[in-house]
Amino acid sequence: MNKPIEFRVIAEDPDTGARAGELHTPHGVVLTPTFMPCGTQATVKTTTPAQLQGVGVNMLLCNAYHLALRPGDDLVAKMGGLHEFMGWPHPILTDSGGFQVFSLAGLRRVTEGGVVFKSHIDGKEIFLTPERCIEIENNLGADIIMILDECAPFPTEKAVARAAMERTIGWAARCKAAHARDDQALFAIVQGCTYPDLRAECADRMAAMDFPGYAIGGLSVGEGHDLMAKMLAATTTRLPREKPRYLMGVGLPEDILAAVSNGVDMCDCVIPTRCGRNGLAFTRQGRVKMRNLTHRDDASPLDPECDCPACRGFSRAYLRHLLIAGEVLGLTLMSLHNIRYFIRLMARARQAILDGRFRRFMADELHAADY
Amino acid sequence: MNKPIEFRVIAEDPDTGARAGELHTPHGVVLTPTFMPCGTQATVKTTTPAQLQGVGVNMLLCNAYHLALRPGDDLVAKMGGLHEFMGWPHPILTDSGGFQVFSLAGLRRVTEGGVVFKSHIDGKEIFLTPERCIEIENNLGADIIMILDECAPFPTEKAVARAAMERTIGWAARCKAAHARDDQALFAIVQGCTYPDLRAECADRMAAMDFPGYAIGGLSVGEGHDLMAKMLAATTTRLPREKPRYLMGVGLPEDILAAVSNGVDMCDCVIPTRCGRNGLAFTRQGRVKMRNLTHRDDASPLDPECDCPACRGFSRAYLRHLLIAGEVLGLTLMSLHNIRYFIRLMARARQAILDGRFRRFMADELHAADY
Repeated sequence: MNKPIEFRVIAEDPDTGARAGELHTPHGVVLTPTFMPCGTQATVKTTTPAQLQGVGVNMLLCNAYHLALRPGDDLVAKMGGLHEFMGWPHPILTDSGGFQVFSLAGLRRVTEGGVVFKSHIDGKEIFLTPERCIEIENNLGADIIMILDECAPFPTEKAVARAAMERTIGWAARCKAAHARDDQALFAIVQGCTYPDLRAECADRMAAMDFPGYAIGGLSVGEGHDLMAKMLAATTTRLPREKPRYLMGVGLPEDILAAVSNGVDMCDCVIPTRCGRNGLAFTRQGRVKMRNLTHRDDASPLDPECDCPACRGFSRAYLRHLLIAGEVLGLTLMSLHNIRYFIRLMARARQAILDGRFRRFMADELHAADY
Repeated sequence: MNKPIEFRVIAEDPDTGARAGELHTPHGVVLTPTFMPCGTQATVKTTTPAQLQGVGVNMLLCNAYHLALRPGDDLVAKMGGLHEFMGWPHPILTDSGGFQVFSLAGLRRVTEGGVVFKSHIDGKEIFLTPERCIEIENNLGADIIMILDECAPFPTEKAVARAAMERTIGWAARCKAAHARDDQALFAIVQGCTYPDLRAECADRMAAMDFPGYAIGGLSVGEGHDLMAKMLAATTTRLPREKPRYLMGVGLPEDILAAVSNGVDMCDCVIPTRCGRNGLAFTRQGRVKMRNLTHRDDASPLDPECDCPACRGFSRAYLRHLLIAGEVLGLTLMSLHNIRYFIRLMARARQAILDGRFRRFMADELHAADY
């Protein structure tokens, strides 16, 4: 493999923009569309790598921002890189920290040069430039890395949205110039808030810079399902067909299906793990609040259709007991169940695309789960 | 098997009281001496049953007190019993709740009839009689169950110690009369605080009642290692050779070795899991505080001699990162490592007994770990 990644579109759905593909990375092949669980601090919360493999996870996401602050990207590099450090010899993607700078950090100042912000851990002032961002991601060593971007909130006035977009495009070029490892693929991030013309312009200008893949950022920040779908359509139709497309931080099953139908190949989100820890389970028949009293003496599995460790090994009554008693095993089992649900949702979506019946599949899924 | 359990002494150490045995239960054979991790609320904190099997756990302990309060012993019975409920098809022992009544519950009154106490969860007043205690344990369905006992604190005046001992002996007879399942073995508990004559008298009187096994309670409550060892010697020498002996809630590796050398066959303790969650690891070379800065960039495993998931898969640097970042995976890996250490300590002790070299083995272990 001369390039860090190779991507092939295997099939395209006749009725939607959905496509099935193969993403070859230095740490293995990922079948797309794919869902990546979040391993924010170099661990997918409450689970082991072996458990993640057991529920079919192919690729993980880790957060450069978090890892740069703790334990430090230099330390991870010294320990042999992120794959070795966290015991995950399969593909990894790191996001740049652009999103966390805007969601987590207080007292930030954005300039053309970069972002000054205070660490959410100890308040220390940090200057994150596009060059430093790439240095962090080169140190971490993920298969796919992200440019530094400016993620604007919703709603944002058009002039401000354009400024953030222009800054992100400028940073994309600087990230590309700074990127020093030929075994990592650097993805651009398309911004433009909820303005279809900005989204299209940003996609065109990023595409012209010839990145090995394109992410779509700044969505799922409060704009709602329909506006998100419109922005996706405005973006993906302008991106090169032969490059992978990654929708960042999305989302609920209905959002993910909308993304796939708009030609998105990769998604990540904390929803399966965070909701799982809060007692909410996803199933094909809809969502289940596992802490509810109704499950107190229910000997049946959470989801009889599911093959995850929680559903194969335990009753709803036991899962509820663990959650009510505050036992960590409850968080682990709920997280594994939800991750398995998202992984299977994507695997079933892929099969539907290969069979040319994705539109029907999507309608059936949304109907079955009563969305 | 006509009796719920069968116990065979396979070998006796020539120089100490240590012995190796086989304990046959309705859910499998346990090689003794054995260590049981604590699954207080029907889960060994932060671990799955598969992970526990993976580190060699044979038998678990669960707490009748905790499970009676939450989720309720009637619920566990309805769900098919504790083995089925918690997904552990191997041997289980339940303690009666006597210890928790004394360590956890506020505002208790002890009478000949039983103990009135307030739930540590909601303050509800509960009357625990020997009969109710056995009803709870019959509902839970463990292979080995315990009588209700009165566990006195250290130090306790002799008259009070005698009164608690007499009450425990009276309750033992009532528990025996109430016990209704022939697939569960009811063990007596020897009390007597730190008075060797009381310990001996209690052991004799319990032995005369012909229980299928004998526990030693009321130790490791502040009396210290040497006094504990003296009380053990005063007790085990009076107990029938052919019955299993179980030391409750002990302890550190040096305490466990002292117990084995005094003829104890079974131990349980929260130490491996609780210490693990607090960042303390046990190894043959001594204890390791995994949160210490010295491990920050240490690429070596926690214990190169250990075959647990933490030591086979991860570096000290990663374990420390997980603990410092507050990630649950750190608690899981540390717990599994410590459980594995205790399981291997007992397995090595057993082999040393079979080889007739337990005294030397114990001295070497204590020396290597610098105890």
